[in-house]
Amino acid sequence: MMEIVTLAHGAGGRLTERLIENLFKKYLNNEYLQQGDDGAVLSLPGTKVVFSTDSFVVNPLFFPGGDIGKLAVYGTVNDLAVMGAEPLFLSLGLILEEGLELSELEKIIQSIAQAAEKAGVKIVTGDTKVVEKGKGDKIYINTAGLGIINTPNNPSGKKARPGDKILVNGYLGDHGAAILAVRENIPGDFTSDCAPLNELVKSIIHEYPVHAMRDPSRGGLAATLNEIAKQSNVGIELWEEKVPIRPQVKTLCGYLGLDVYALANEGKVIMIVPPEIAEKALEKIKAHPLGKDAAIIGEVKEAPAGLVYVKNRIGGERIINMPLGENLPRIC
Amino acid sequence: MMEIVTLAHGAGGRLTERLIENLFKKYLNNEYLQQGDDGAVLSLPGTKVVFSTDSFVVNPLFFPGGDIGKLAVYGTVNDLAVMGAEPLFLSLGLILEEGLELSELEKIIQSIAQAAEKAGVKIVTGDTKVVEKGKGDKIYINTAGLGIINTPNNPSGKKARPGDKILVNGYLGDHGAAILAVRENIPGDFTSDCAPLNELVKSIIHEYPVHAMRDPSRGGLAATLNEIAKQSNVGIELWEEKVPIRPQVKTLCGYLGLDVYALANEGKVIMIVPPEIAEKALEKIKAHPLGKDAAIIGEVKEAPAGLVYVKNRIGGERIINMPLGENLPRIC
Ligand SMILES: Nc1ncnc2c1ncn2[C@@H]1O[C@H](COP(=O)(O)OP(=O)(O)OP(=O)(O)O)[C@@H](O)[C@H]1O
Ligand SMILES: Nc1ncnc2c1ncn2[C@@H]1O[C@H](COP(=O)(O)OP(=O)(O)OP(=O)(O)O)[C@@H](O)[C@H]1O
Ligand SMILES: [Mg+2]
Ligand SMILES: [Mg+2]
Ligand SMILES: [Mg+2]
Ligand SMILES: [Mg+2]
Ligand SMILES: [Mg+2]
Ligand SMILES: [Mg+2]
Repeated sequence: MMEIVTLAHGAGGRLTERLIENLFKKYLNNEYLQQGDDGAVLSLPGTKVVFSTDSFVVNPLFFPGGDIGKLAVYGTVNDLAVMGAEPLFLSLGLILEEGLELSELEKIIQSIAQAAEKAGVKIVTGDTKVVEKGKGDKIYINTAGLGIINTPNNPSGKKARPGDKILVNGYLGDHGAAILAVRENIPGDFTSDCAPLNELVKSIIHEYPVHAMRDPSRGGLAATLNEIAKQSNVGIELWEEKVPIRPQVKTLCGYLGLDVYALANEGKVIMIVPPEIAEKALEKIKAHPLGKDAAIIGEVKEAPAGLVYVKNRIGGERIINMPLGENLPRIC
Repeated sequence: MMEIVTLAHGAGGRLTERLIENLFKKYLNNEYLQQGDDGAVLSLPGTKVVFSTDSFVVNPLFFPGGDIGKLAVYGTVNDLAVMGAEPLFLSLGLILEEGLELSELEKIIQSIAQAAEKAGVKIVTGDTKVVEKGKGDKIYINTAGLGIINTPNNPSGKKARPGDKILVNGYLGDHGAAILAVRENIPGDFTSDCAPLNELVKSIIHEYPVHAMRDPSRGGLAATLNEIAKQSNVGIELWEEKVPIRPQVKTLCGYLGLDVYALANEGKVIMIVPPEIAEKALEKIKAHPLGKDAAIIGEVKEAPAGLVYVKNRIGGERIINMPLGENLPRIC
């Protein structure tokens, strides 16, 4: 008989206990979680701590290049990393739908454990709730994360300056394309870029004074650059031919009527750096496996303040607006 | 026209931005959230940090004595407090169902802001996702919390010792009863005990060496004491006549066929303390508004190890098992 999640698994009694012992403590095994107390007692060496959270509701749960478990770990790891922090600890909040197969839950917890190992973080505390069939969609995951800052550099969306160069560590839009292709049943070679960016970011941030850094997740490059243009009150110019986008991703966007710049990424980082270090930082990024297709894709301008636009080789320009996003639900 | 949450509110674009500006930053206003970066940079004075998380899926969203927003703040505040920590910062992860009225969301965010103010914590980072109609239930909330320990006392479920007395700060089962009464449409005077325990706990923990401390939330007193009995490998004896339970709550439990000891609480703390300080600690608890109905309800025994039982005045005994909980879905 197939074992499934029942409402009693979320009631804090014997079945909740069984999930905690047989799944969470087993796979996410570490000294903090083993305590089984109401929270984890941590020592956080350093004076500056970064705290971030994301929930994950991606549909489907498994897709080429990843799954909701990996996303939940790397997503929060990446938000900490782009704040200049070394990610250390995550919490794990699960909302399970009644009827979810325990074997599927187990696969997701295994994936979370693997991803945490790879990113060098520990899941130290968690929570599990169950909702009735039809009030969820198998599983929703929240992670919150803690990291410590141990460099004097602290990038922020407010610090982009005219003249700064805009770097990205590789092809844009792969995650969004992979999810949409599975969902719309479109054949082709689409794989999510889902990856932990902390190591790559660390190799740069300790050496170069990055002004602004952000992971272009939901809303993609378009949302991220619009946010920074606004926060820093600068213009941002993109060079169309320099933005790394796979041909099949461009084709898919044409087919679905989507702006490729608005597609989500889960293993990309945008770094905005002073011009004099841009080439050296690019070389350093390229030396990392997650940065081999990196490129300088544009430049910060004084005007038009708050706007992002893209220029092509023959001088054509168009504004890249903050996306509306109505066609891209549950991408992460 | 009634404004509602749409899928685009969760896509990371213009509508997400609008929610963040017009609701979250407006009501949860503080210097950290205003930054709008990928995480909050915090300074956490002290060497020991406590980290905890809970998700909230309570149904209905509003109930006598509270709402999902208050629960989400106080729930995590209380887990930090019972770890001996002073709660400082929370993250806020929302999973909204398409179609949720913005006015209802606004009421919940206002309630969160009020509760955070009352508990003395700040919401410093957050995330908002939207799922399709029928894949959620209006709103699910996750909070993760950070607190610092600044007392040498660090209670743990492992530290209950034979002879220790068991204290509770008031009537048990009020939250569970309030939710069930609304849901089953049972008339009567039922109000959730939903409250932040950090101030009460602080007044005790700095003065008395509390061995074990826990908030008896899902699974109630039964789950909490069973956990501690197991973690500390001790027996726990309860004195039936001493456990504060309101008559109407007892009646409701009889009517619904539920064990009153398994009902959830959201403003109660169990403290297990050395016998020599029990009476003094009780007096101190009673001096606090959240502790005026406090009582000493039992004692830790050497045997039977790992078991909880209740004794009545005429010597009758029964085992209090870890509840199964199949009748108590979505209580918090
Ligand atoms: N999904 C999970 N992953 C890792 N650990 C978990 C998970 N769910 C629960 N735990 C751990 O199990 C223990 C019990 O969690 P539980 O949520 O029952 O405690 P609580 O928050 O005090 O209760 P409540 O959620 O009713 O308020 C805690 O130590 C918690 O960290
Ligand atoms: N419910 C919320 N409450 C408080 N702040 C929020 C909430 N939702 C988002 N925010 C804040 O808004 C800003 C943008 O959040 P957003 O989730 O879009 O960023 P992100 O996590 O980098 O992107 P993604 O979620 O796509 O990975 C952050 O500063 C975040 O803390
Ligand atoms: Mg981000
Ligand atoms: Mg994120
Ligand atoms: Mg919990
Ligand atoms: Mg809790
Ligand atoms: Mg608790
Ligand atoms: Mg987010």
